[in-house]
Amino acid sequence: MGSTDVPEIVVRRLPLYLRALSSLAEANHRITSSQELGSMLGISSAQIRKDLSCFGEFGKQGMGYEVLYLRDQLRRILQVDRHWNMVVVGAGDLGHAVVNYGGFRRWGYQVVAIFDNDPGKIGRTLGGLTVRSVDELEEALQTLRVRIGIVTVPAEGAQAVAERMVRGGIRAILNYAPVTLTLPSEVRVHPIDPVVGLQSMSYYLDPVQE
Amino acid sequence: MGSTDVPEIVVRRLPLYLRALSSLAEANHRITSSQELGSMLGISSAQIRKDLSCFGEFGKQGMGYEVLYLRDQLRRILQVDRHWNMVVVGAGDLGHAVVNYGGFRRWGYQVVAIFDNDPGKIGRTLGGLTVRSVDELEEALQTLRVRIGIVTVPAEGAQAVAERMVRGGIRAILNYAPVTLTLPSEVRVHPIDPVVGLQSMSYYLDPVQE
Repeated sequence: MGSTDVPEIVVRRLPLYLRALSSLAEANHRITSSQELGSMLGISSAQIRKDLSCFGEFGKQGMGYEVLYLRDQLRRILQVDRHWNMVVVGAGDLGHAVVNYGGFRRWGYQVVAIFDNDPGKIGRTLGGLTVRSVDELEEALQTLRVRIGIVTVPAEGAQAVAERMVRGGIRAILNYAPVTLTLPSEVRVHPIDPVVGLQSMSYYLDPVQE
Repeated sequence: MGSTDVPEIVVRRLPLYLRALSSLAEANHRITSSQELGSMLGISSAQIRKDLSCFGEFGKQGMGYEVLYLRDQLRRILQVDRHWNMVVVGAGDLGHAVVNYGGFRRWGYQVVAIFDNDPGKIGRTLGGLTVRSVDELEEALQTLRVRIGIVTVPAEGAQAVAERMVRGGIRAILNYAPVTLTLPSEVRVHPIDPVVGLQSMSYYLDPVQE
């Protein structure tokens, strides 16, 4: 379990560093620098050095970082060098897309069960999994011993689903519902909010002249 | 069009401030402070004051901010006080979910056309729109005069689709494909990457004892 002394904003940048290092490793780059990582990610080299220094000494002064070593250290720190099971609640379009998303498995995250409350969806097969009734959620979570849940239900059902996940032992929630979840502080929530992305881009747009 | 002198990292926080201010306005709060906004968002009050000072003087010393005034100023700065049309390429599960996502319309973003390359999907209706052939993309974009595109195709097709969007006049792309797009610097890209969210949460997880 990660140290809680490191600011969360730093932890949130580590996956970006890991992504850049994995790209460099795939391209057979052996050595990199905070400058190179910074220009790949649009983050200052000073920020990168400061962030990494929270976790130890990964480079030699003036020698840069060994790509594979730093990548593997970040994988260990982020605990992504292990396999994580996940459950999905909500078997609509978004649930379909999530279950079939190739990016999860590639990084060690696997959906092992999916639930819905719609009798028309329960029992159907989705990405190799049979959709189960959400009535079984807490009991199934106890058996599956899963820590990560993905909420793909509509906004109005999301809070109740998240609370049930937490009762079943879930401690990290990826929330696709357009609503802010209120949960105990020991539960991590990561919202997937496309509107925030759109709004930060429209700042830069030159509106079309009509 | 927004000033390019303001660091992008600051621009990316503005939608979060706008979200918090909109919540406060809905709850009929009239006055807020950088401390209150900070505790809602997990961002330091000093950071919030510094970010806002890039755009002018919005509060009186010791008096806090007027919620409605600051909200409206942020809406104007982010150019989200106007209506933006968008096109989607990729009419699979994710395209379905995006077209039917209520959060976009609520914030002034509207999907006006959807495209796919699958003859089995072209001509079908999706969220009130008829799926069009991607062969028509550039021409349709010229007619529609749209600036924002959403990529919901699989990873291997995403770069080509994004390049065609840019040729048609798109200048901001919300990218759901798990791949980094390489595009001219004047084009903004916002990746929706759920794995980055999972990785920053698994840092904190206590693995299940097997």
